[in-house]
Amino acid sequence: MSELALIERIASRTRRRPGTLLGIGDDAALLRIEGTAVATQDLLVEGVHFRRETIDARDLGHKALAVNLSDLAAMGAEPVAALVGLCLPPDAPGSEDLDALYDGMEALAGRHGVTLAGGDVTAGPALVLAVTALGRALPGVAPLRRSGGRPGDLLCVTGALGAAAAGLLLLEDPGLGAGLEPGVAEALRAAHRRPEPRVAAGRALAQGGARAMIDLSDGLALDGLRLARAGGVAARIELAALPLADGVAQVAAAAGRDAALLGAGGGEDYELLAAVPPERVDALRSAAGVPLTPVGRLERGAPAAVAVDAAGREVPLAGLGWEHRV
Amino acid sequence: MSELALIERIASRTRRRPGTLLGIGDDAALLRIEGTAVATQDLLVEGVHFRRETIDARDLGHKALAVNLSDLAAMGAEPVAALVGLCLPPDAPGSEDLDALYDGMEALAGRHGVTLAGGDVTAGPALVLAVTALGRALPGVAPLRRSGGRPGDLLCVTGALGAAAAGLLLLEDPGLGAGLEPGVAEALRAAHRRPEPRVAAGRALAQGGARAMIDLSDGLALDGLRLARAGGVAARIELAALPLADGVAQVAAAAGRDAALLGAGGGEDYELLAAVPPERVDALRSAAGVPLTPVGRLERGAPAAVAVDAAGREVPLAGLGWEHRV
Repeated sequence: MSELALIERIASRTRRRPGTLLGIGDDAALLRIEGTAVATQDLLVEGVHFRRETIDARDLGHKALAVNLSDLAAMGAEPVAALVGLCLPPDAPGSEDLDALYDGMEALAGRHGVTLAGGDVTAGPALVLAVTALGRALPGVAPLRRSGGRPGDLLCVTGALGAAAAGLLLLEDPGLGAGLEPGVAEALRAAHRRPEPRVAAGRALAQGGARAMIDLSDGLALDGLRLARAGGVAARIELAALPLADGVAQVAAAAGRDAALLGAGGGEDYELLAAVPPERVDALRSAAGVPLTPVGRLERGAPAAVAVDAAGREVPLAGLGWEHRV
Repeated sequence: MSELALIERIASRTRRRPGTLLGIGDDAALLRIEGTAVATQDLLVEGVHFRRETIDARDLGHKALAVNLSDLAAMGAEPVAALVGLCLPPDAPGSEDLDALYDGMEALAGRHGVTLAGGDVTAGPALVLAVTALGRALPGVAPLRRSGGRPGDLLCVTGALGAAAAGLLLLEDPGLGAGLEPGVAEALRAAHRRPEPRVAAGRALAQGGARAMIDLSDGLALDGLRLARAGGVAARIELAALPLADGVAQVAAAAGRDAALLGAGGGEDYELLAAVPPERVDALRSAAGVPLTPVGRLERGAPAAVAVDAAGREVPLAGLGWEHRV
């Protein structure tokens, strides 16, 4: 297919939404972003971040946009538009799969008022999705940086942990799901394939007085360490407090893994981790729209993340989390 | 190298400039973009857009940013920031070359007030640079779309044409440069490796009454056709009027190519092509800051681009220009 034909095909499957003045088809997109603009970019590379054996085209499109919207959510920002760079290898998905890929993105985009406003398509040696998400800070609300946490703040996570990691284990070895209810197993697989960016919860946390935030792309252990380092504080994580998703304990047991460590170390949950002053926690639990669970606290001390088990014993976190090497 | 170490290394080599409130190191960058925001993304893929044999790391960094700033220039916009997605293969450039790559970007960024404000680094099967450039429309000046051209407008190009194509021919077969002055040959090679985005000229053209604009990434023939189609007009290009860069005629002759067709069909000049009302041309020639040369005009008729030689004979353009297949 020619580049032009592909771009016209993509444009015909996407809709321009408020905030975007000019979308696909010119040298650049034109957007209306009042106040502070928020911009992030994440790449998904075949063989590194996904395999076509475990995710279909529609879910891949969803996920490529979701991981970027999750970064906007972690600032408490409102998404506006996305640019999609697509590198297609010789064995690229066929045109039906490409339609599905953009349909997956467009469906998620529509739920968040986002316009797929441009990007680039090119041949290349592997399937790569380079998505940039653009948004705006809420009026009168400072975007939440990683660095704002203070000693005494509670560490709170949205939703449940470990689902994406357990889902990937199930996708790679379906036998690990023996005994799970089909709906529970499917929810775990879906958590890996179609993470839901916590945009509304991020907004509520920013408006409601959280002091620092990060999204859990690489796991609570590693992302908690990042939050601690950015704030110059120590993070203490109570493993017994982690809100594990349904079925995580069973899959972990079947795989010979510790469930709490799967929850703390498994990446790609795309939940939010926020540092919240203790007196704000109750109000935020009401406002977040999803479960918000205290899993630890920030303390004075050298920047580090330590985990303790139910008996208060320290559990090593080194090596947990998806620490990328490049 | 760990991702964290690499990101810290990159951050240490880049500078935050006005308009960027928060750069590398958080979930997203924070920017101050008054008025209309302008956003574009271009991918450079090894083996498709470049080969390490013909471009070094510093020039590659320059070029990856330059082609994106060129898209902003084509809207008449002011660049503010860029996000850089980098995919590193197993035989990736070493850390000195990575430093050089970011230094090349940072040097160009500095000349245009741009902050390298974020991005992503990941392992992958090939070297890919996915750069997103963000800017703003000039206050009170509508960004220049491709679609604004009207019958009677003169087609004007900035600078000179054919240099990047001749430079690439020279890089692939140095023998074609026999007889060229060394400075001329070097300028042609530099045009391929280090294109200068026409940011100031684009601003002047937008402020001074140009009606439509596109940057010449794929050659005058193809990009002229795009401008014609977007405006619903015909483009007539006078091949004898093309401002060929010094040395293009000699390299074309040595390669057995027609010089004017190399100028019209060779991509990657990253000059601007603007549709200008005839009465505005003189003022714009003064304001552009670089040579501005009428090379044809827009006419009523079916959207198409036709070229004529000095004798007024039509010259087929089909097949000219870098039409990507994906």
